[in-house]
Amino acid sequence: MGILLKDILAVVPEGDKDIIKETNIYIEGSRIKSIGAEPQGFCADQTIDGKDRLAIPGLVNCHTHSYMSFMRNVADDLSFMDWLFGTIDPIEQQMTDEDTYWGACLAIIEMMKSGTTCFNDMQMNIHQTTRAVKESGMRAVISRGLVGSGMDEGGQMRLRQAYEERDAARDCDRLTFMLGPHAPYTCDEAYMRIVSEEAKKNHMGIHVHLSESESEIQQIQEKYGCSPIEMADRNGLFDVPAIAAHCVQITEKDMEILKRRNVSVVTNPASNMKLGNGFAPVPAMLEKGINVCLGTDGAASNNSLNMFHELSLLTLIHKGVKRTPQCISAREGFRIATINGARALGLEKEIGSLEEGKKADIAILNLNTPSLTPRNNLLAGLSYSANGSEVETVIIDGKITMKDRKILTMDESLVYKKIEEIITRMGLDQKEY
Amino acid sequence: MGILLKDILAVVPEGDKDIIKETNIYIEGSRIKSIGAEPQGFCADQTIDGKDRLAIPGLVNCHTHSYMSFMRNVADDLSFMDWLFGTIDPIEQQMTDEDTYWGACLAIIEMMKSGTTCFNDMQMNIHQTTRAVKESGMRAVISRGLVGSGMDEGGQMRLRQAYEERDAARDCDRLTFMLGPHAPYTCDEAYMRIVSEEAKKNHMGIHVHLSESESEIQQIQEKYGCSPIEMADRNGLFDVPAIAAHCVQITEKDMEILKRRNVSVVTNPASNMKLGNGFAPVPAMLEKGINVCLGTDGAASNNSLNMFHELSLLTLIHKGVKRTPQCISAREGFRIATINGARALGLEKEIGSLEEGKKADIAILNLNTPSLTPRNNLLAGLSYSANGSEVETVIIDGKITMKDRKILTMDESLVYKKIEEIITRMGLDQKEY
Repeated sequence: MGILLKDILAVVPEGDKDIIKETNIYIEGSRIKSIGAEPQGFCADQTIDGKDRLAIPGLVNCHTHSYMSFMRNVADDLSFMDWLFGTIDPIEQQMTDEDTYWGACLAIIEMMKSGTTCFNDMQMNIHQTTRAVKESGMRAVISRGLVGSGMDEGGQMRLRQAYEERDAARDCDRLTFMLGPHAPYTCDEAYMRIVSEEAKKNHMGIHVHLSESESEIQQIQEKYGCSPIEMADRNGLFDVPAIAAHCVQITEKDMEILKRRNVSVVTNPASNMKLGNGFAPVPAMLEKGINVCLGTDGAASNNSLNMFHELSLLTLIHKGVKRTPQCISAREGFRIATINGARALGLEKEIGSLEEGKKADIAILNLNTPSLTPRNNLLAGLSYSANGSEVETVIIDGKITMKDRKILTMDESLVYKKIEEIITRMGLDQKEY
Repeated sequence: MGILLKDILAVVPEGDKDIIKETNIYIEGSRIKSIGAEPQGFCADQTIDGKDRLAIPGLVNCHTHSYMSFMRNVADDLSFMDWLFGTIDPIEQQMTDEDTYWGACLAIIEMMKSGTTCFNDMQMNIHQTTRAVKESGMRAVISRGLVGSGMDEGGQMRLRQAYEERDAARDCDRLTFMLGPHAPYTCDEAYMRIVSEEAKKNHMGIHVHLSESESEIQQIQEKYGCSPIEMADRNGLFDVPAIAAHCVQITEKDMEILKRRNVSVVTNPASNMKLGNGFAPVPAMLEKGINVCLGTDGAASNNSLNMFHELSLLTLIHKGVKRTPQCISAREGFRIATINGARALGLEKEIGSLEEGKKADIAILNLNTPSLTPRNNLLAGLSYSANGSEVETVIIDGKITMKDRKILTMDESLVYKKIEEIITRMGLDQKEY
């Protein structure tokens, strides 16, 4: 089973930067067999004509809550704690397994159609998400959201579910698992320590929300006399590879901890603005050498899962905040949206760039589009003018999952129909708009 | 000649807010004949099935430089004065009439494909832009960019060109004209006064750049001892209906002048961030009752002309800056991108909303898309998750100019080809990317 991308422009790493060159890409099984020279005995079952096309590594969405897609537009313009505890939590109480499944399906469709080939998810009902990931051909890293207090039964039950799901998914190597202690304001110190020990014992990474809102900082300061990042650190969360979402409201000391403990930070610019949390100090984190990656957060707080939109925000807003047009170039932004994400997920040897031997996770864009004309500087085009709809074909794990913008692995219309049914049943179809 | 949009969801004004309702829209000639009831004797030559579709008033891009599209990606990550005088100006020196024409064509394609049906343009070679507007079926307001010093010949010649073009375009009622004194740092006070008098005499509006960068503020302060807005005011620019682009770096006093003189302000969030100019105080201007509208600026400084992208920025960034999630709602943003723009251009009786008797300038979006699912709150969807590619059909002045995402009035492939030729000829095709 071989796929040949013939005479195609491709974004490939050369030294420590990405360049664009015209080449041939040979895919065999799930991997990129060769870029450039035809491998001996290569047999192309399918050839994709690369004329007027650009191949890029699939984007890596490092923080989302896929099931939340059906909650798009239900809780706009609310402050963080009102949003979470006043609106989202009550909806989650009435959510069924099937709702989670269809929510994850919608998320995967939106991500695939905008060039994302791997996402890092945190949520409660991970069984339904792994089901959607398996069926769709997507790649994902999944964390069972863990909320608990010391040895309470709820916290223990959630940990058991995390392991059950990991064990049940061993047949699918597109799926990996982390432990997901939700946040310092939903897990106490004893539970954080339990989760850290479990992660160490089971060789799993940690996915956690840290320092997202001002009210979180205040709460944690009052309760523990330290910052959320210090609280996480002193309870062992950073003893294993850790990925921390948000880190908006952080101090110099917090940044030193993140750097020293080799924590990856996922920045979520749209969500942080939309919930009024502000702007994460991404330029300062990059300067310190922290591995910053990019995420959309869930559709209930973004409300988009389009990583091209997020990439444009990443490369624009800090120029505005710092009043410095050189701040986070298109080139830097693209790495943050790809290889930095792969590194944060412990998958940098497998995905995040187009290289021989890596998994064939590739988005192919149509260059006959106004946003990518002219083709003089396509890395700038990807950050500043592409909107994601230029993505025409998606290959994940060596399989074509989208062709000519049609998703081959899922029934799109059925998903849209199911989502409308869910919001109608829940009374979320605001007739007043 | 009648077009019927049958059983379609539509964004229509009700009192001072927009609502979404399912209805029929009857178009006769260039105008909306009726919304709801079938007009007597109506004959539909074409019927568009509204199932799973949303009709919105075409977006109004209130500040751009269409010819600059071919300069997309050529001058990224530069500060404002280096960008303008170091890079853009030298390119403009070698630009031919045909280059301007193809640049305008590319801009129109990009705008039409993302639901913009009217744009407000400022530039030098307006003859080529009016040519592209006439051919494409677009609607535009065009200002000859005016740069001058007192009675110097250049300034007079530019004014003559402005009138010549206006007179030559009297046969096309999709075109109107303003006078475009470029900015306080490129026009002296005597020339500003001449332009103001000319505008009054000829009943024309004024389109000007004001208070865009910190260096502009400093220059004008040093030269005239006042702000750019005060300089414009004292030289009569606001004696006629005026539209001021940017207004990023402004004082309380500036805002009072803008309000008192009834000046419309075009905010250009992407461009202001990208050039490191910062964030305009849009929430404060709205609070004062200033008519704020939205623009993309040119592709050399954005680099996108997609008004959906700009709308998402408008409704996200101020929530981040003010740390207030209620700041500029989706509903408010949509008005800023439509009717406020129409008002700024003196066209509020003709365009900017779907109403009986107004021009039929309509974008029809496909709702069978992940970004607009669910359909519970489509105004939020338009601001926060749409990317512009949902626009499927565009009607301008009662004519279908795009159908199933194919532009009917222009040869897209030819435009892309011509743009590549221009940048190759100019040596702007950076091989290194």
